[in-house]
Amino acid sequence: MKLRLGMIGGGQGAFIGSVHRIAARMDDEYELVCGAFSSNAEKAKASGLLLGLSPDRVYASYQELLEKEKQLPEDVRVQVISIVTPNHLHFGPAKLALESGFHVILDKPMTFSLAEAKELEKVVKTSGKRFCLTHTYTGYPMVKEARQVVSEGKLGKIRKVYVEYPQGWLSTFLEGENNKQASWRTDPTKSGIAGAMGDIGTHAFNLAEYVSGLQVIKLCADINTVVEGRRLDDDGAALLKFNNGASGVLIASQVAAGDENNIKVRVYGEKGGLEWQQDNANTLLLKWLDKPAEILRTGAGYLSSYATHNARVPAGHPEGYLEAFANLYRNFALSIKADIAGKPAEKEWLDYPGIEDGIRGMAFVENVIASGKSDAKWTDFKI
Amino acid sequence: MKLRLGMIGGGQGAFIGSVHRIAARMDDEYELVCGAFSSNAEKAKASGLLLGLSPDRVYASYQELLEKEKQLPEDVRVQVISIVTPNHLHFGPAKLALESGFHVILDKPMTFSLAEAKELEKVVKTSGKRFCLTHTYTGYPMVKEARQVVSEGKLGKIRKVYVEYPQGWLSTFLEGENNKQASWRTDPTKSGIAGAMGDIGTHAFNLAEYVSGLQVIKLCADINTVVEGRRLDDDGAALLKFNNGASGVLIASQVAAGDENNIKVRVYGEKGGLEWQQDNANTLLLKWLDKPAEILRTGAGYLSSYATHNARVPAGHPEGYLEAFANLYRNFALSIKADIAGKPAEKEWLDYPGIEDGIRGMAFVENVIASGKSDAKWTDFKI
Amino acid sequence: MKLRLGMIGGGQGAFIGSVHRIAARMDDEYELVCGAFSSNAEKAKASGLLLGLSPDRVYASYQELLEKEKQLPEDVRVQVISIVTPNHLHFGPAKLALESGFHVILDKPMTFSLAEAKELEKVVKTSGKRFCLTHTYTGYPMVKEARQVVSEGKLGKIRKVYVEYPQGWLSTFLEGENNKQASWRTDPTKSGIAGAMGDIGTHAFNLAEYVSGLQVIKLCADINTVVEGRRLDDDGAALLKFNNGASGVLIASQVAAGDENNIKVRVYGEKGGLEWQQDNANTLLLKWLDKPAEILRTGAGYLSSYATHNARVPAGHPEGYLEAFANLYRNFALSIKADIAGKPAEKEWLDYPGIEDGIRGMAFVENVIASGKSDAKWTDFKI
Amino acid sequence: MKLRLGMIGGGQGAFIGSVHRIAARMDDEYELVCGAFSSNAEKAKASGLLLGLSPDRVYASYQELLEKEKQLPEDVRVQVISIVTPNHLHFGPAKLALESGFHVILDKPMTFSLAEAKELEKVVKTSGKRFCLTHTYTGYPMVKEARQVVSEGKLGKIRKVYVEYPQGWLSTFLEGENNKQASWRTDPTKSGIAGAMGDIGTHAFNLAEYVSGLQVIKLCADINTVVEGRRLDDDGAALLKFNNGASGVLIASQVAAGDENNIKVRVYGEKGGLEWQQDNANTLLLKWLDKPAEILRTGAGYLSSYATHNARVPAGHPEGYLEAFANLYRNFALSIKADIAGKPAEKEWLDYPGIEDGIRGMAFVENVIASGKSDAKWTDFKI
Repeated sequence: MKLRLGMIGGGQGAFIGSVHRIAARMDDEYELVCGAFSSNAEKAKASGLLLGLSPDRVYASYQELLEKEKQLPEDVRVQVISIVTPNHLHFGPAKLALESGFHVILDKPMTFSLAEAKELEKVVKTSGKRFCLTHTYTGYPMVKEARQVVSEGKLGKIRKVYVEYPQGWLSTFLEGENNKQASWRTDPTKSGIAGAMGDIGTHAFNLAEYVSGLQVIKLCADINTVVEGRRLDDDGAALLKFNNGASGVLIASQVAAGDENNIKVRVYGEKGGLEWQQDNANTLLLKWLDKPAEILRTGAGYLSSYATHNARVPAGHPEGYLEAFANLYRNFALSIKADIAGKPAEKEWLDYPGIEDGIRGMAFVENVIASGKSDAKWTDFKI
Repeated sequence: MKLRLGMIGGGQGAFIGSVHRIAARMDDEYELVCGAFSSNAEKAKASGLLLGLSPDRVYASYQELLEKEKQLPEDVRVQVISIVTPNHLHFGPAKLALESGFHVILDKPMTFSLAEAKELEKVVKTSGKRFCLTHTYTGYPMVKEARQVVSEGKLGKIRKVYVEYPQGWLSTFLEGENNKQASWRTDPTKSGIAGAMGDIGTHAFNLAEYVSGLQVIKLCADINTVVEGRRLDDDGAALLKFNNGASGVLIASQVAAGDENNIKVRVYGEKGGLEWQQDNANTLLLKWLDKPAEILRTGAGYLSSYATHNARVPAGHPEGYLEAFANLYRNFALSIKADIAGKPAEKEWLDYPGIEDGIRGMAFVENVIASGKSDAKWTDFKI
Repeated sequence: MKLRLGMIGGGQGAFIGSVHRIAARMDDEYELVCGAFSSNAEKAKASGLLLGLSPDRVYASYQELLEKEKQLPEDVRVQVISIVTPNHLHFGPAKLALESGFHVILDKPMTFSLAEAKELEKVVKTSGKRFCLTHTYTGYPMVKEARQVVSEGKLGKIRKVYVEYPQGWLSTFLEGENNKQASWRTDPTKSGIAGAMGDIGTHAFNLAEYVSGLQVIKLCADINTVVEGRRLDDDGAALLKFNNGASGVLIASQVAAGDENNIKVRVYGEKGGLEWQQDNANTLLLKWLDKPAEILRTGAGYLSSYATHNARVPAGHPEGYLEAFANLYRNFALSIKADIAGKPAEKEWLDYPGIEDGIRGMAFVENVIASGKSDAKWTDFKI
Repeated sequence: MKLRLGMIGGGQGAFIGSVHRIAARMDDEYELVCGAFSSNAEKAKASGLLLGLSPDRVYASYQELLEKEKQLPEDVRVQVISIVTPNHLHFGPAKLALESGFHVILDKPMTFSLAEAKELEKVVKTSGKRFCLTHTYTGYPMVKEARQVVSEGKLGKIRKVYVEYPQGWLSTFLEGENNKQASWRTDPTKSGIAGAMGDIGTHAFNLAEYVSGLQVIKLCADINTVVEGRRLDDDGAALLKFNNGASGVLIASQVAAGDENNIKVRVYGEKGGLEWQQDNANTLLLKWLDKPAEILRTGAGYLSSYATHNARVPAGHPEGYLEAFANLYRNFALSIKADIAGKPAEKEWLDYPGIEDGIRGMAFVENVIASGKSDAKWTDFKI
């Protein structure tokens, strides 16, 4: 039985919409049944056609979609709504979808503002529906293994967390060259108060907290707009303090010319350290004080149930970004299906990012931008 | 419009069947409509059910599948048959499927013997149907780029080709431990005359010829059965001579203890060399006589149309084994759809492995095993 | 003609003394003729004997060494004094050596305090003698190449500098276990006001300024003492602002458990970025906005005169830490010999770290520690 | 006490002569006291002067050197002769030096022919002098560790050995461009019957036998002269059989365009495999069947006495080619000094390549070239 999926946003030419659809298809847990792909009606229709949807389930707006689908018979109507619009169009559809009785998968950063995020949290709780926020990187098997290594205490008490996300694609004034991705991501009316910090800083922040199992309680940020004419930050770094006393550094830049997308996290404890980076995604490096470093690999027999559950092929067949993304979709589906079946979901299935990650992510955005503007050094991480 | 796909073999628990299905789903070009998943009728039914197929299109045998589907209305019946059985069950279904008017995707090695391969070649030609052999590694974007670099003469005349495929998973007598994969792959009644040479040697051979654009004309092989009690080769190496005068070395082993699946090819010409390996699949290294080596990356803007067409996400989002596999399925579908639409297929679409690769692969198996047994040094590569 | 070298500090069992001696011997530019190896007279004698020195030139104190050597005939007496004592014993010997008419090679950090550093600067200027501070990492051929790449404008205007020096060797309370290295390096009476920041932070700072050609003008630091009972910082990070408007991050830690010594620098400009790390010391990675990244290698024909001059063997024969150290000694010797010969020194020879690096390094120590204690965010980099 | 060293060959501009001298100086175990650096008398004198030798100990020929030095007082005359001439000038000086009562360090390949090698073996035995052949790669700490890992049985019985030495520097007809190195190395009157096989094939062969602890008993070779006009082989590969039943592959090429000097060895046993390559010389990778691969590093505390003895700096300070070379010189010196002191040499000191390695190396040259010319497949490895 596949879950019936609807999509809001993600029309032709959209990068992340296509990624969501591949992720949804990968493990055959979903069937795309409807969509409101664009505010441009013609483009919306064309996208739906291309995706093989029944024309009567390609809608002109998310409101129409949710309204009409609600009225369809229970075994026909959509069950999960995937929202892949720019940030300023996250909250409205998500709220309405939840209130309409649908589970929601939402792209990050969760909302336009922290206030919206908190509001959405209430809606999620009230709705009783499941909610998934696509912090992709936590879907990698070896990121899950990393979290296990830490949570089992193998590294001892955690002392340091370094996380970095260097990109170079915004090194020039791309938003002036009719680049759609660059345009909305650097537009404060669409992205919110943050550029790089919202787009990739939130990923880095989420990865750091996910792997370390810790929470940031203070930060001190340097936020920069490097490219002339740009309206939002395209670069930044923050010193971090965690709730167990550990300290850390977060780096995120979109003007690291020549860099691609190599998000990387390092966590050190009393007994050893770990290192994972997307460019070598199937490897988790464990380093020790007094014995050889170890290379853990996706698909190997010695991994935790979390890493094993989130891999599809034997060791040595690289799994990538799309598989990591698909893991979010799969775990979300497995959890919903368990609900439907009236069974408890396995703990590995429930390990997908949710509303709490979104709240913390939006708090990160607001706190880090505020710190960037502040003359004070350490500022409390407020939610 | 999705192509209607049927599958022969690949019941529950099969590794490669699942991979084929993910590959077929990835780009939404296929819809699985029927299957004959197992010779065990109950298992076949269960597999079909799990895959959400209509029970009346889950068949007890491939003969039944092909017979019954043929009789369905044209717009309902299956269009493409994917065959994922062990080697000894390749030829029969493939022949019948083609003769029944269906396009065929077949797992490698193509057949049980070269004689069967030649017979199948005739059937393909007579049938007028498209045929794809799943030599996965040629589906990687950077392997396609490698082939372009060579074919455009950037390296000058090719002089050396090194290809290696070291695995360690058969380092112990796994076939004695009720391991299904190990059992059939080491069984001469199911795999044919070769073990490692058929299973992974053919991949290495195919990759070497694909990237270099050359053909092996002579070889000299050392073929070993290392693990006691094993009935087929689990290790080997061959010295190679190519049709342009270049020489090479092919290594394939399943007793390289601790190795995973790191197939690697290096090609050297008068002006430079290239290097690609699956463990770093999104990188193609170009090395030059008198300037810095260059790192080409999947998704980058400077790549050839072949590499670009076969990637889904921007540079820095790793694409892996499943994406490479899916590229075969996608290109095959795009070519078939072009046929249906009465349009010429793009050259990038037609770049999928076919019957000729299968003929050469089976000839490799027979020649390399024969050379391994021979006291003569160089033996001509005979087809 | 070899320069006559004397050593202060570096008796038996000292790590860095031995490194200095190997560096001095490597290129045959020096002959060790005298030493005051230890404040322990017996140990000093034993060390001198082991090193094959004439007993009458093994002295009980640096004062004695400088006094007696000064009285030897010009063609016999020492010419260059190498000082490899702990930090608190840098200034005295260096000052006296310069005032005694000898050239000085001094280990880093330059002095116990910035005040001493400024005082030493005056002595150097008055003395007219050459002075070298052993910031080893700037001796690597590919670090020199990196500096050239930046200074020639290949990366465009520099925007970001990341430098990191993660070590793990002080993850435990080693100074409580009779470890000589750990003891003095964590002792404020010997190291000065900084632990990690003085020992490795100064290296990171120097490398960042050397490669980027920029100067830090503001910083904001988080300085930590992680291991209980330790008397100095063992960890820290700083946000940086440079004199051209670029920003940066500096990381230095001695509690990055499992890490060795992998100092790494990344510099990004408008057109591209570069990356160098000690663990892959013979490679300089250049990354570009719109073309493949390039791998530059020690010993290759396409390098600048600076990189070429500082390598000894053809490409592919790895040169390491000792060779980098030796480059400092060699360039210092070549410069002195040019003076002696009354010829101008080549620009490549003059490229060794000197008093100015020491002043800035000690200013870094004082500024970074002050910032760590301050509640203010950005503090001006004061000298 | 330093050993008094004399050098035959290695005048100005010679690559390997300079390497030997750095190696000899590195650990202060030798003092260069005399030399016959060139058959060109003027060049010989100039070289001696540059090296700071007393003019009366710079000789016009090796015969003169040995004759005259023999007559000097015992505590003045040379003790160790280092021979760094082209291959055809190895045997004569080595024989005479040994017969004159001096220890000998000889560059590889040992002699011009196997016959000479056998003759030299007799001379060594008769002379009672120590003899070292500079197979540099066995001087790397992690190569020594690799040998220990195998010899202690950690990998179980050895099954496979892959060794490769790909270089690209002879990809063009460099010997036609007045390149001194290329000229003699491709000249059969100077190099002997082999080009690439003698120059680098012997290194690969030696490394394979050293690490595996096995001996080749059969081989089957493909030997090529790729560049037009070249008089000796510049490329080749060989299938190998070892004395314990293991098989292997050896690759050596000087036309692998763009490659530097990345000699690499992989050894697999029943339980695991190991991998070492010069380009990452301070890492030894151990791979296991059922647990994570391990990264062993030069200088770490967990290494064997062999690896520890042959390193100079703590982990993370890379040691390179010159240090590996120096390890040969150092161990040779320590062994000789033990003899002089009438004490047994430590087993770690005695682990330097000697006459037996030379015999096997020259046998490799003759066997591999013969096999390359033969139509027979396997040929016995004859000495």
